[in-house]
Amino acid sequence: MSDNNINNIDNSINNENKSSNYDAKTIAYNLAKKIYELDSNVYESVGSELGRVFIGDADKCLDKLSALIYTNPHGYLLRSEVALVGNMARTIKDKEAKSKFMRQYNDILNEIAELPHGFGSVDILDTSISELNVSNFHRNNNDNRMIICISRTEGSAGTDIGFALADKLRLNYYDAEIFKDLVIRKDAEKDARWKSKKIDLSHEMINPEKARRFSRNHGLPANDAAFFNESEILRELAEKEDFIVIGRCADVILKNNNIPHVSVFITAPVQQRARRIMELEKIPYSKALKRLVKLDKKRERYYKFYTNNIWGQAYNYDLCINSASYGIDEAVNLILRVINRDK
Amino acid sequence: MSDNNINNIDNSINNENKSSNYDAKTIAYNLAKKIYELDSNVYESVGSELGRVFIGDADKCLDKLSALIYTNPHGYLLRSEVALVGNMARTIKDKEAKSKFMRQYNDILNEIAELPHGFGSVDILDTSISELNVSNFHRNNNDNRMIICISRTEGSAGTDIGFALADKLRLNYYDAEIFKDLVIRKDAEKDARWKSKKIDLSHEMINPEKARRFSRNHGLPANDAAFFNESEILRELAEKEDFIVIGRCADVILKNNNIPHVSVFITAPVQQRARRIMELEKIPYSKALKRLVKLDKKRERYYKFYTNNIWGQAYNYDLCINSASYGIDEAVNLILRVINRDK
Repeated sequence: MSDNNINNIDNSINNENKSSNYDAKTIAYNLAKKIYELDSNVYESVGSELGRVFIGDADKCLDKLSALIYTNPHGYLLRSEVALVGNMARTIKDKEAKSKFMRQYNDILNEIAELPHGFGSVDILDTSISELNVSNFHRNNNDNRMIICISRTEGSAGTDIGFALADKLRLNYYDAEIFKDLVIRKDAEKDARWKSKKIDLSHEMINPEKARRFSRNHGLPANDAAFFNESEILRELAEKEDFIVIGRCADVILKNNNIPHVSVFITAPVQQRARRIMELEKIPYSKALKRLVKLDKKRERYYKFYTNNIWGQAYNYDLCINSASYGIDEAVNLILRVINRDK
Repeated sequence: MSDNNINNIDNSINNENKSSNYDAKTIAYNLAKKIYELDSNVYESVGSELGRVFIGDADKCLDKLSALIYTNPHGYLLRSEVALVGNMARTIKDKEAKSKFMRQYNDILNEIAELPHGFGSVDILDTSISELNVSNFHRNNNDNRMIICISRTEGSAGTDIGFALADKLRLNYYDAEIFKDLVIRKDAEKDARWKSKKIDLSHEMINPEKARRFSRNHGLPANDAAFFNESEILRELAEKEDFIVIGRCADVILKNNNIPHVSVFITAPVQQRARRIMELEKIPYSKALKRLVKLDKKRERYYKFYTNNIWGQAYNYDLCINSASYGIDEAVNLILRVINRDK
């Protein structure tokens, strides 16, 4: 390639840069003009007591607005300015004028969306989470898996909501009691396997009972063994069926094993929960309050210990629901709507 | 009334108690028998490796089960036992047998629901909250009010979700920037009113500028005045229009003023939010992280100061959404489904 050619390419690149630079500024200025004019027209039409958005010298306003569009230091500033014009346009009484201005407003929003940086919008989606989120799966009809993990504070009716949901969706239902049962059966299976091995330990200095327990618990303390047995059961269940599971750190276990699910945390204001326990258990309010605080602390510690996450923090779940705002039946309907199973 | 008559009434009351007592125990025993028999039949049909739910001497099982139904010390125990039978029945391969057993299972659930204490279910609904919750209003088509309060952690795209939602629902959109603007205008209005009073202060030892500021701020410090002015604006807006409002403790202000709304808290894991800010602002991760922690702390303090509530705790909102699980577009769709406006 001759030097001449290189120079030509350089020039053309420079020209392109300059012209695209020039174009971007022109686009920004033209858009600013559209927004400014819409603001003037809307103000005239509404005769608003709130006044117009862009006040003072028109040229200065246009310069400021087009700089905002062109440089976009904070997308939200432009968004707020434009939203103000839109808010005002919506108050116009004359239907024809209103619909004309709202059309212009939507055109402006579309033009902004087409800008390279728009409102400076960057999505927050975490694909590693969202791809496991079954409530996103309505976009893909092939995958009908449905595992719902419900965590809940004491007295929030989370288990009642879970059970009612399982009943409506005809899904299996697993809670702490059922898991206890499943773990006992699993232990019995392991013991049976251990016995069937018929290893002769008489020549070793090992207590056979201890050896059996060691085999059953993978050498772990009983509590940890229970947790790991539950995790194993949960993974096995997820391979063969859909279900609803209450607590048991199931959300984290499933996430760590890349098993699609939706995690829901259910809670309610503490007074409301204490009142409910009081009614259910026929105990005084103070005792109900004490019990729920104690049980919640226990769950918090358990969750922290096995997952290193903070229990009940909204960012650890797909969704949190205040059951006092909805009640049991409506909370069930709400979850059905969220997971697109309300039809 | 003669003593005789009183005795007769006493006797009849006693008999009634006895007979209703007897009936309740009989009902409990018959129901226990149905559950026990369903368990046997399901076990036989499924040949489950997990074994049957009720093991050992049939009479003892029935006594235990009917006592559980009759006394219902903890509704959840009965629920778990029954759920286990249902879970097993759902694994039956033979479709005809499965549907027969599931019908029997549902009959049992219905019978339990008809018991005076059922599963010991007491609703968690707080009518003072739920009656203000617009997402419950689909049951009542007459009221089409729609005010949505969005609170959000920094970087969670909560404002983007709010703006996109406002655009989809054609609702006005109010954020901090717009509120600042509205407060300035409100101050200007108040100043104008103050001036129009034309009170002669020259004979008093009052600085007219101070007096003007006092009138504008109700004698409050500037920060508090801004908050109360915003509250006033919010109440005025709620009287005449539907809208989406970001932050500003709007959820608590509306609740305290008995104005129907739905409150949504949007957040995401901190790493995901920091990454997003990094991308948006073209700053290093560490700086993005610092900024979001600082801004969240500021919001937490503001919320605590003006509402005495803990910001971001799920029980303070109707709903919390993890935006990293859904992304902006899908979070908007999710909220539309929740408030029944997705059709």
